[in-house]
Amino acid sequence: MDFVAVDWGTSNRRVFEIAGGVVTATREDDQGILNCADFAGDVASIRAAAGGAPVLLAGMIGSNRGWVEVPYVAAPAGLSQIAAAVTWVQPGVGIVPGVSYSDNIAADVMRGEEVQVLGALALGEVGDGLLAHPGTHGKWIEVEDGRINRFRTVMTGDVFAALKAKSILSDLLQGEAGTGPAFVAGVDHGLAHGDLLAELFSVRARVLLGQAAKEDAASYVSGLLIGNEVSIGLGRRREPIVPVIGTAALSERFAVALDRAGRTARIVDGEDAFVAGMIAIMGATR
Amino acid sequence: MDFVAVDWGTSNRRVFEIAGGVVTATREDDQGILNCADFAGDVASIRAAAGGAPVLLAGMIGSNRGWVEVPYVAAPAGLSQIAAAVTWVQPGVGIVPGVSYSDNIAADVMRGEEVQVLGALALGEVGDGLLAHPGTHGKWIEVEDGRINRFRTVMTGDVFAALKAKSILSDLLQGEAGTGPAFVAGVDHGLAHGDLLAELFSVRARVLLGQAAKEDAASYVSGLLIGNEVSIGLGRRREPIVPVIGTAALSERFAVALDRAGRTARIVDGEDAFVAGMIAIMGATR
Repeated sequence: MDFVAVDWGTSNRRVFEIAGGVVTATREDDQGILNCADFAGDVASIRAAAGGAPVLLAGMIGSNRGWVEVPYVAAPAGLSQIAAAVTWVQPGVGIVPGVSYSDNIAADVMRGEEVQVLGALALGEVGDGLLAHPGTHGKWIEVEDGRINRFRTVMTGDVFAALKAKSILSDLLQGEAGTGPAFVAGVDHGLAHGDLLAELFSVRARVLLGQAAKEDAASYVSGLLIGNEVSIGLGRRREPIVPVIGTAALSERFAVALDRAGRTARIVDGEDAFVAGMIAIMGATR
Repeated sequence: MDFVAVDWGTSNRRVFEIAGGVVTATREDDQGILNCADFAGDVASIRAAAGGAPVLLAGMIGSNRGWVEVPYVAAPAGLSQIAAAVTWVQPGVGIVPGVSYSDNIAADVMRGEEVQVLGALALGEVGDGLLAHPGTHGKWIEVEDGRINRFRTVMTGDVFAALKAKSILSDLLQGEAGTGPAFVAGVDHGLAHGDLLAELFSVRARVLLGQAAKEDAASYVSGLLIGNEVSIGLGRRREPIVPVIGTAALSERFAVALDRAGRTARIVDGEDAFVAGMIAIMGATR
């Protein structure tokens, strides 16, 4: 056993036992930071199960709602800066810091995505340029000289969930969001129009006026939000190929949206990237 | 007693008894369409309390969740079109239709705001041009030749409520939203940037990075959303003075935002406009 890497998020937790540079066992449960009652006890159990191997934790576990708050490393940040800022909360138990970005206009933070970026770089799957990391709080990350140079978070998934939970669109958003023609139509509209707060209401109006099917609303709104995100994320960048790091289902949606924007997605598996990133960070801390 | 005008919305209901062209009594309660259990019975009580006078109902009572669904009148629609489309559900009991707009690109609907627009026109408070009707689903309405020519709904209030109820910003949005410097800063940002889904997350990042006070977040987000709405609503219109029909508190926020956009708000009391509109419609149905 080399070490145990833990992707400890808000809702879920994934544990990867790593030996000889490869994953030998994985476990996943719902003990994210909002559910976990005993961080220290759980970490002790994880170590014990791995024969006392070192443990490296990443993600929201290092946030102000997690176990021990670990300060962000300011961008530009690459492997050496991030590895140097790992906080060893106990001998053999480290927490990876997040990365922050700020200038006179923008301010942003990430926790966990930086590991996947470093992993994708280590795997040779991405290089300098723009990459996307879709999610509840999707990140668009500019890599320069192998470091995270700046980035921007777009609240797409969170806003979709909030609209679904409590808004005039709630009843229309309960269905499954597909990737068919309604999704593509939403993407095209989202790419072209920055007036999201108005376009969202028109979804309801179209259904009321019989111009759109209720069953298509969830797909259309998903497309509208993702199209808007892609438009924001691409900004003035001109990369023809944009790596997308994430889960298969979400990456596929972004691949469709990037295609509509005239770009090509290069899908990178988020779990592979996470493991490679943790191996790289662990190696660099020694 | 001339008649009774009822503004019957989603959550609330306001009753105005009108005699000699002026309001002689008003009542307000929480029996909006989502709470009211007996539309016919309540209307009978309202009539009885007014000595059997005719009753004219407007707002969501005519929607598919209300008492009797009354079809929208397609814009362009003025007093004569709207009055002609009042549906008499019983002798002496009428429901005002809403107004719809659609073309190849846009689709939109309103129910209730059209009464206030007709009233503001009847009062001489507005003429041809652009006007704003802020609210949970704020309307930006273009009046031409005294008719509602086209309009656009912006989901500002609804999105603010959804973000407050369920999103990463929930805890930051529980405070009161003021109109001080944080609100103005949000307005300026919202006016200048169409990338709302990214700007929203930066509110949280600024607080985490110590660049903004948690107490200012609700004001800033309110400003950001209203600035974005004003930018959408103004579009390419050039009117230096924009009438704002609504409640005093909300109109004041939009007056600040319009000022930041280099325009001047002309505040029109929404209740006065409603009463004048219902008197005009009732008169035109005879």
